[in-house]
Amino acid sequence: MTDSPEGLPPSLEAAINFDERGLVAAIAQQQGSGEILMMAWMNRESLSETLKTGQVCYWSRSRGKLWRKGETSGQTQHLKSLSVDCDGDTLLLTVEQNGVACHTGRRSCFFRQWNGQKLEDVLPVVQDPETLYGR
Amino acid sequence: MTDSPEGLPPSLEAAINFDERGLVAAIAQQQGSGEILMMAWMNRESLSETLKTGQVCYWSRSRGKLWRKGETSGQTQHLKSLSVDCDGDTLLLTVEQNGVACHTGRRSCFFRQWNGQKLEDVLPVVQDPETLYGR
Repeated sequence: MTDSPEGLPPSLEAAINFDERGLVAAIAQQQGSGEILMMAWMNRESLSETLKTGQVCYWSRSRGKLWRKGETSGQTQHLKSLSVDCDGDTLLLTVEQNGVACHTGRRSCFFRQWNGQKLEDVLPVVQDPETLYGR
Repeated sequence: MTDSPEGLPPSLEAAINFDERGLVAAIAQQQGSGEILMMAWMNRESLSETLKTGQVCYWSRSRGKLWRKGETSGQTQHLKSLSVDCDGDTLLLTVEQNGVACHTGRRSCFFRQWNGQKLEDVLPVVQDPETLYGR
């Protein structure tokens, strides 16, 4: 756990408790508005790349590879600040979200709100997913 | 996955993808200010209790039991709204935090911020942890 082949700064390596999969949870919050955009996962390589480029890169668990946010859709996230929680198992990324964070075309992935009876969509689709991913 | 012995409402049961441990990530955000207070985990039972009581209850992975936030420290979280993300693996809880969320006596667990060189504490200790947990 002490070596960091991907070049993570030693003080971050020491502070972050990567899980048994080598991952840490990362919450993305829009700077200024404070809206929570999404939650995803990072490994050492994606975090290291994010720090170097300033463009947020996650680890896609489903695809098993680096996920450069916005690479396909253009909806990039620029890193503004990075915080680590008290037990080191979650990161908070303050970002400038270009366009929308959610693949459904909504600003945030947290668009389904419980009203006591059922979940209702509380955020509008502001970008047609077809224009984000369509050909 | 369809039965819910703990009485989770069926539409929530259908929307939430509990992981192989039966857990879902839960982000707590202070209503109004938008500050991110903490990230923890819920199982069906803790979520069901949270919805019934309005007081946030997590699942403690380290202790392997329900974690009624503030039960020991008095720093309770009152649920204001609950949202589910697009792939159902993270919840966003909007809460009214009584006092501080972090066991270190800070408002938020995300008090260590990366300055490009090292992590620095950016939030003050506003409650002496001794008064929260001491005898």
